[in-house]
Amino acid sequence: MVMGGGRESGGMAAQAGKLGVVASVAINLAALAVYLRRRYSGDDVAGGRKREEEGEELAVAPSSGKPPVTPDSVINLDHGDPTMYEQFWRGDAGERATIVIPGWQTMSYFSDVGNICWFLEAGFEREVRRLHRLVGNAVAEGYHVLVGTGSTQLFQAALYALSPPGAAAAGAPMSVVSPVPYYSSYPAVTDFLKSGLYRWAGDARTFDGETYIELVCSPNNPDGGVREAVLKSGTGVAVHDLAYYWPQYTPITEAAAHDVMLFTASKCTGHAGTRLGWALVKDRVVAQRMNKFIELNTIGVSKDSQLRAAKILKAISDGYDHAPAVGDRTRLFHFARRKMMARWGALRAAVASSGIFSLPDELPGYCTFAKETVAAYPPFAWLRCEKEEVYDLEGYLRECKIVSRGGAKFGADGRVVRISMLDTDEAFAIFVDRIAAMK
Amino acid sequence: MVMGGGRESGGMAAQAGKLGVVASVAINLAALAVYLRRRYSGDDVAGGRKREEEGEELAVAPSSGKPPVTPDSVINLDHGDPTMYEQFWRGDAGERATIVIPGWQTMSYFSDVGNICWFLEAGFEREVRRLHRLVGNAVAEGYHVLVGTGSTQLFQAALYALSPPGAAAAGAPMSVVSPVPYYSSYPAVTDFLKSGLYRWAGDARTFDGETYIELVCSPNNPDGGVREAVLKSGTGVAVHDLAYYWPQYTPITEAAAHDVMLFTASKCTGHAGTRLGWALVKDRVVAQRMNKFIELNTIGVSKDSQLRAAKILKAISDGYDHAPAVGDRTRLFHFARRKMMARWGALRAAVASSGIFSLPDELPGYCTFAKETVAAYPPFAWLRCEKEEVYDLEGYLRECKIVSRGGAKFGADGRVVRISMLDTDEAFAIFVDRIAAMK
Repeated sequence: MVMGGGRESGGMAAQAGKLGVVASVAINLAALAVYLRRRYSGDDVAGGRKREEEGEELAVAPSSGKPPVTPDSVINLDHGDPTMYEQFWRGDAGERATIVIPGWQTMSYFSDVGNICWFLEAGFEREVRRLHRLVGNAVAEGYHVLVGTGSTQLFQAALYALSPPGAAAAGAPMSVVSPVPYYSSYPAVTDFLKSGLYRWAGDARTFDGETYIELVCSPNNPDGGVREAVLKSGTGVAVHDLAYYWPQYTPITEAAAHDVMLFTASKCTGHAGTRLGWALVKDRVVAQRMNKFIELNTIGVSKDSQLRAAKILKAISDGYDHAPAVGDRTRLFHFARRKMMARWGALRAAVASSGIFSLPDELPGYCTFAKETVAAYPPFAWLRCEKEEVYDLEGYLRECKIVSRGGAKFGADGRVVRISMLDTDEAFAIFVDRIAAMK
Repeated sequence: MVMGGGRESGGMAAQAGKLGVVASVAINLAALAVYLRRRYSGDDVAGGRKREEEGEELAVAPSSGKPPVTPDSVINLDHGDPTMYEQFWRGDAGERATIVIPGWQTMSYFSDVGNICWFLEAGFEREVRRLHRLVGNAVAEGYHVLVGTGSTQLFQAALYALSPPGAAAAGAPMSVVSPVPYYSSYPAVTDFLKSGLYRWAGDARTFDGETYIELVCSPNNPDGGVREAVLKSGTGVAVHDLAYYWPQYTPITEAAAHDVMLFTASKCTGHAGTRLGWALVKDRVVAQRMNKFIELNTIGVSKDSQLRAAKILKAISDGYDHAPAVGDRTRLFHFARRKMMARWGALRAAVASSGIFSLPDELPGYCTFAKETVAAYPPFAWLRCEKEEVYDLEGYLRECKIVSRGGAKFGADGRVVRISMLDTDEAFAIFVDRIAAMK
């Protein structure tokens, strides 16, 4: 946008705006009309039917994300917009995740005045703990649960909580580091307010200091690598971003039990628009300070989102507890794993067919949730071009109407890009076809 | 909490936590059980009935705000928790504001890729513009509408947008000022991250400089005064916080048309837990930069909250458009105005009966919405103690189990406090009784 936030050059709106303009010109308008009628008239889905039966006016129609694609469209895989999951929630599980909120409900700022996180809905906390018990990906017992407006807000809350309050006065902001390739938002979000409390200090592997916050993203965004903290100083602290530590993306090898662990509904259930994340925090004082950040930043977190997320997490756990043998239609992680496996298979075939690209190796492991050895299917493809003359793969792909995120934004080189594997079936299929055709 | 944010000494959790502990001890447990059963069993309200009929499990029960009060309770009027409005939404209007969100809906990050505010739900924007046309309190035509996680986030977005990007590098953060008494959160929220872009510079009336952001809150929190910018330098800019410029609190005297205007559902409709605010912004570049802040801070705003707020605003406008003569049960501003008038009447009578307090004078004016001359009924009482020996009114009231916010937090003296006028009928009645008895 107008003001670059750190190293992010584009911004979601600018990128998506371009897509919108191109798509709206390129699209077959008749097909769009049919698509929109199907989306909004409610003649093919449970939620829509219910609304029609109740005779409710549709004046407050919800949005439906990015415009639909055609074979000529620009395909925007820059962001990890998890629209792949919509298919699951339109099925049997979706009906159970429907939420009804009466006009008088949860009007107060407060949810539980006795909780450190006084704006945390008890039902949401309960379902978070239940889901971690079911999946076994993190220890929740003995941890404080905090809720945030996406894990992005909780990430900032952790920086605030773990930086010494006197850092600004001393002119010594806390150094924030992560090993290359790191999630492109880390530097942008750390530095956009030029805080005196903390500042981005780059690659953890080349960091030379004793005091720091290391961001450990595992499996890693962008390259899917399984990670542990690389720095081990006694005065440094780690924040574990476990947004992708779910069975559809990676084998669950142990219940993580780090000091600060961040999760988000976006990448677990696919509900990015709900903007809901949670943190598991071991230390009470750190939890209090993180909560203070959210209190000052947004005076709490949408209760509507919390209630909805609670229903969604409940539907996931119920899908396993109540109907374990019914198949993928009620089992989210099985549904998503099958999708990811198919997509990675298609992408690897396209890369082989093309001959000019390479991908990270498949990493198999024993998954305690699936109770078998499975491969990892990361949410992003870290795609490298082996052609000597291609220095700027992001630009090269853009010529083929594929929008990706270039390696430089992750601290890496320009011959590599990050590609979202979580978009719609239609967009993903066109992307794969184009990759296969590139020689 | 642990880490004081600027001048705020307590923090919501600490204050409310104290209340919770005391209340949970003091309360009659049998009464609480009845209260909770009535709240959660759904046998007295439309939303509850619907859920029961559908046979939905109630495992994800919503919270109900602060604990109910008894005559012995600590009465916490520190925050403007607008639970007064719940009564309205439990009535006829509430049924029309009920929202149903199917599991598959609004999963994407994006709402409209062609909009500057690409995460803004079109239905919410439409209802915002419609409500301003109905009330006539602000010009929306020709303005960009932005959505935020409460107006608190939009306030920070405005600071970010209106501070020069090079301010930090130049070591010259933008000065943020407001005339005493100013909203206590302004200094806390401005300074908690020690941003190099902007910093709190105190009372606008004593500010000596050419470049600044002046926060103009009108009607003013805490004292209800009608305000205009006090600084007029050519290089300064104003942000108008119009959270309380609604007909229940003050006569609507003109349609405001300032460069940046902030509003929030919390104080207009009473839905604080929904955490939804909006901004009307004249300049495109400022709107883009404000949007960039929200993009970096929380990657957009809960779509569930936006959809719900759209339904709520629609119910308000429909209440006037479709049934203008039915009375207060469907007309929010009339309902709330009647409540505020009764509460201010009760408080002024109690103050007269006590003899040791004073309140700001009533300010009448012609209201273009009500089409008559009406008095102002501010959302907070700015209560002063005239007793010579009371230097710390906040502490003095606390001895009578009344939690208020002391004048020092607003840049004023300790003989004055801010009291919320928006709490439940029960809490307000006990508060008034205690004030009347203080001699």
